[in-house]
Amino acid sequence: MILAIDVGGTWTRVLLVRRDGSVERREKIRTGADPVGDAARLADGWDFEAVGVGSIGPMDLRTGWVTAAPNSPSSRFPLVDPLLKFKKPIYVANDCVAAAWGEYVLGGWGVENLAYLTISTGLGVGAVVNGHLLLGKEGNAHELGHAVIDIQGGVKCGCGGLGHWEALASGANIPKYFKTYAERLGRRPPDVRTSEDVFKLYREGDPLAQAFIDHWLDVNAAGIAVITAAYDPEVLVVGGSVALNHWDIFKAVEDRLRKYTPLTPPAVERAKFGDDEVAIGAAALAIEPPDTLKKFGYPRGV
Amino acid sequence: MILAIDVGGTWTRVLLVRRDGSVERREKIRTGADPVGDAARLADGWDFEAVGVGSIGPMDLRTGWVTAAPNSPSSRFPLVDPLLKFKKPIYVANDCVAAAWGEYVLGGWGVENLAYLTISTGLGVGAVVNGHLLLGKEGNAHELGHAVIDIQGGVKCGCGGLGHWEALASGANIPKYFKTYAERLGRRPPDVRTSEDVFKLYREGDPLAQAFIDHWLDVNAAGIAVITAAYDPEVLVVGGSVALNHWDIFKAVEDRLRKYTPLTPPAVERAKFGDDEVAIGAAALAIEPPDTLKKFGYPRGV
Repeated sequence: MILAIDVGGTWTRVLLVRRDGSVERREKIRTGADPVGDAARLADGWDFEAVGVGSIGPMDLRTGWVTAAPNSPSSRFPLVDPLLKFKKPIYVANDCVAAAWGEYVLGGWGVENLAYLTISTGLGVGAVVNGHLLLGKEGNAHELGHAVIDIQGGVKCGCGGLGHWEALASGANIPKYFKTYAERLGRRPPDVRTSEDVFKLYREGDPLAQAFIDHWLDVNAAGIAVITAAYDPEVLVVGGSVALNHWDIFKAVEDRLRKYTPLTPPAVERAKFGDDEVAIGAAALAIEPPDTLKKFGYPRGV
Repeated sequence: MILAIDVGGTWTRVLLVRRDGSVERREKIRTGADPVGDAARLADGWDFEAVGVGSIGPMDLRTGWVTAAPNSPSSRFPLVDPLLKFKKPIYVANDCVAAAWGEYVLGGWGVENLAYLTISTGLGVGAVVNGHLLLGKEGNAHELGHAVIDIQGGVKCGCGGLGHWEALASGANIPKYFKTYAERLGRRPPDVRTSEDVFKLYREGDPLAQAFIDHWLDVNAAGIAVITAAYDPEVLVVGGSVALNHWDIFKAVEDRLRKYTPLTPPAVERAKFGDDEVAIGAAALAIEPPDTLKKFGYPRGV
């Protein structure tokens, strides 16, 4: 049994996961200033052999701390230290990286090359290439949400960078970018506050929203073309509420990939684990430890 | 001693390389319809323990054939079969992938995460992440020359894709894109045929060429930001005649990376092996075989 912790900006999920990926127990607490500490207190007395943590970032894998979380009660908090009391092996990764590993190990895809894409409030990517979970020098070899897609558009990302995929396509940015898009066309900025407002207008047949969502599909096709060029995956597993709640719309990206890539594109498929995606991924880190994580000194705690 | 073969569009280089990366013998022949066959005939009677091949692509690593080379006397040719007569282990990779491995194994960089970028006639990338040479499902997990950087510009790449880095920045495309750039500004298309013509105008102080090269640096900074997001490398090793012949200009990309990436950017450094870059990389494949290449059934021939 694995103690699996998913630290999100709003909710921290604490699960007991069996080695086959099935869930024995599932709890949810509001993310506070010390979310892994809160999870460790909740799990006191639970019976498990190892711990996996998938967390919002950015983090420093070497120190085991989140260093600058933008949308969380605390921007800095430990991922490893509060778990040392259990004296069990501890594994840690970024949430999208964990989700990619979870789909690779437990998703039943039967491939050596798999990328994970989530489009929810933010937009993130994780990748397994030739069976290796990519981490890079600091654990950031998965940050294609910050790929420059639109060098001419001048849209600034939350991170400060110019023209990033996330700045154009994530849930939090869809209403902002819809207004920019309208202004570019000389149209009055539409009255939208959330991505759901934009999709509602689209589904009601609003022509401006339809043109914008058509552009949003192109942006996502271009982003997936970059994933394809970077990682050459067999499958792209897609999660996140924006993509999954509007899968009927999103699925059309597949027909547009040829516009942007000369390579054999991956199959675009729905993620398998719903709200448990990151927690199952965190469990998978402990069930089948990635060789690359060992290079960062994991497991810790033993 | 390693027989190292670099198949380029115009020249095929055939070297004998010692295990420390030094060169014992160096020959060069015009690339014909069967370049590896020609190299094998040239090397008849040479004394070596293994063979490494770095070649223009695209290739299918599984079959060991180049499948659709755009600028070569033959678009399809074998990379493995003409070498079987030697009864020695044979290793094969794309030229940029081989160069990345050569810099990783023999470049003395002392890092686990290294990306290679070449800007010459074309623009290509190769990457080593956490010590693994990235190949992907078909050997194309290095094609960030085809990353979509400019989704709005409408510039078509030689591969047919829209807005690719290579279409904006490679040696063959610099004069074309300079004309497009001038037209966008409502200026008369400048009379340039080669990238050297453009750099000459720049160095003479031509204001349009100076504005264009300034934009070219932004394009390259954006591309390197994508490499950083995808692979999180410690070092970016840069080769190719366009970048190296104008290193005084190109080096300024480093100051622009912060515009495009929130991550710690890599050090941007000159490639170490000059005209031998791909051949040394091909030798490195045989000297220290990448684990990922084993997954494609290499070495062959034994």
